[in-house]
Amino acid sequence: MTTFETAFSPTIVNVELGTRRYPIYIAPKLLDHPHLLRKHVKGKQVLVVTNTRVEPLYLDRVVAGLTENGSNDVRVETVVLPDGEEYKTLEVLMQVYDKAIATRQDRRCTFVALGGGVIGDMCGYAAASYLRGVNFIQIPTTLMAQVDSSVGGKTGVNHPLGKNMIGAFYQPQAVLIDTDTLSTLPDKELYSGIAEVIKYGLIRDAPFFEWLEENMEKLMARDPEALTYAIKRSCEDKADVVAADEKEAGLRATLNLGHTFGHAIESGLGYGGWFHGEAVAAGMVMAADLSHRLGWIDQALLERTVNLIERAKLPIRPPPEMTVEKFKSGMAVDKKVADGKLRMILLKGGLGHCVFTGDFDKAKLDETLRAFCKH
Amino acid sequence: MTTFETAFSPTIVNVELGTRRYPIYIAPKLLDHPHLLRKHVKGKQVLVVTNTRVEPLYLDRVVAGLTENGSNDVRVETVVLPDGEEYKTLEVLMQVYDKAIATRQDRRCTFVALGGGVIGDMCGYAAASYLRGVNFIQIPTTLMAQVDSSVGGKTGVNHPLGKNMIGAFYQPQAVLIDTDTLSTLPDKELYSGIAEVIKYGLIRDAPFFEWLEENMEKLMARDPEALTYAIKRSCEDKADVVAADEKEAGLRATLNLGHTFGHAIESGLGYGGWFHGEAVAAGMVMAADLSHRLGWIDQALLERTVNLIERAKLPIRPPPEMTVEKFKSGMAVDKKVADGKLRMILLKGGLGHCVFTGDFDKAKLDETLRAFCKH
Repeated sequence: MTTFETAFSPTIVNVELGTRRYPIYIAPKLLDHPHLLRKHVKGKQVLVVTNTRVEPLYLDRVVAGLTENGSNDVRVETVVLPDGEEYKTLEVLMQVYDKAIATRQDRRCTFVALGGGVIGDMCGYAAASYLRGVNFIQIPTTLMAQVDSSVGGKTGVNHPLGKNMIGAFYQPQAVLIDTDTLSTLPDKELYSGIAEVIKYGLIRDAPFFEWLEENMEKLMARDPEALTYAIKRSCEDKADVVAADEKEAGLRATLNLGHTFGHAIESGLGYGGWFHGEAVAAGMVMAADLSHRLGWIDQALLERTVNLIERAKLPIRPPPEMTVEKFKSGMAVDKKVADGKLRMILLKGGLGHCVFTGDFDKAKLDETLRAFCKH
Repeated sequence: MTTFETAFSPTIVNVELGTRRYPIYIAPKLLDHPHLLRKHVKGKQVLVVTNTRVEPLYLDRVVAGLTENGSNDVRVETVVLPDGEEYKTLEVLMQVYDKAIATRQDRRCTFVALGGGVIGDMCGYAAASYLRGVNFIQIPTTLMAQVDSSVGGKTGVNHPLGKNMIGAFYQPQAVLIDTDTLSTLPDKELYSGIAEVIKYGLIRDAPFFEWLEENMEKLMARDPEALTYAIKRSCEDKADVVAADEKEAGLRATLNLGHTFGHAIESGLGYGGWFHGEAVAAGMVMAADLSHRLGWIDQALLERTVNLIERAKLPIRPPPEMTVEKFKSGMAVDKKVADGKLRMILLKGGLGHCVFTGDFDKAKLDETLRAFCKH
């Protein structure tokens, strides 16, 4: 076993945050090598947080992995939350605190998030706030979580009036990505994750965008090598940005390309209407459209953007329910608003370049909204 | 006005936390000099969080101070919470989030805590978690908050099963202490604050303990100079400890002398039973008793401790409702428990010295519990 484990060499992407530096491990069958997980557990108590959908698929393997090989002195507790963005609330978070306190998890315990972005965000925020902060490990099981939400330390829950309004920046000890978990992922959720993958190409990585133009069909067919490469490259892009600007003073905001429109769509539809990546996809098309109206990108880049998003079977316009007014009220509560001024991420300066700015002609924003909404 | 404001020179204690260094201003009539407050407001939106008891006393002055002198472009909103430790919950915290979102507070807004320890802890945690962190200023109006809870960045709320189980380390931009606010403080709350003042002497500041032995009557009579000195010295002691160990890796835990017993008393009585400082006072006597039983301090220091606490009209034993069992179950959920091992702050090595350790004879702890409980 030891020999075998030594031979196992996952791809590693390091998130460089000084004393809080941590590794992202990426490999197929990674859950079959739980020494990686055990290595990052501190203390003797673990609380695994998952949901009703992931529990029957992977929970037993994770728990067994934590306790095998003479790690019997580690006590593992689990809490299973309902599945869905509508449960990403303070009320449901209380179930994690309740379980942690009832099982007397102490300051040296480790919380493990096993699931998609909602579980990662909630478990991470529980870890950030329980006893003012305990250890935390991410095991993301959706493409969205693997390429985006599990990396970079944004954690939190929704408020009835806005997404992720309550939360913390809190970095995990490690992120463990088993690409095989994607085999159980429904198609639409795979596409949703690909929206964020495309985003990295647009905002900072032209060669990756071109790779995606060449390999989108492989990715859609879940070709293992294509998936692994796309996840690794996405994690590298995100890790670079987070290392340079952990608390989102500026650069990190560029990761929100399409999200200002996208969040307005999500809150306009109510949770569970569209997948996050679907809303982001339509939002990226709108951001590209606005960038083009401002004269910041040419027609060709706008078309390449729309085409790639369309090939990923993602929406290229908002749902018909979205009106100009719904967009405006949804965008007014965006976290990037500062001193009353809406700031957006817009494409500028050719493929792979963008800006984060509040300094653009708002009349053009109105034009974009009117172009994409019936009223 | 400008000349007058320049002439106003409050005592300043700096909390040395690198880039997050911040000042504590201490002076009578400090609220009459709101330029200090305005200086630390960033952005154009302020949310003042207070409670029903403090609102009629000081809220108008603080709001007026924020907007006078051409600061009309600052928009001030207020939220008034119910008064009492029993309202230090996630449910009540939602009122702060609700107000913040309803009034569209953005990332550059400032939350101001106006009140005692409960308001400071709740407003601070709201500031830590709203949009993953906004600016925060403390205006503590009780002695307890001025000498302890407003300094050092511990924020949070209670869980039904334990105090401060949910929270964050989050430092303010500044702490503004107007010692005149103590004139409206009920006697028992003054005494409660004095418990923490005595604590600093016991754990790290023998000269201050001796000063308290000489000046306790002045302090109890609210002599302004004695109060100012005690507040300044307490803030200095706490600031030193926090600067050396912000996240409570070790040294900072010593600030919890008496708190392990004290928290058990508070949770055993239910919130609102005793003031925090009263529970801590009884807890310090118990900690001193245990230290003596362990042979770590002599009889004389035990007696000096008990005498000083008694002179401050604070309890020197737990309430009769507290049983050995209640203590044990209350202490088992203490945040300082690590890997199942109870760690305590105990006096050792003469006046002004203590240790934080899990390495002591638990039979002696049982003796202490039995000595202070009827059953």
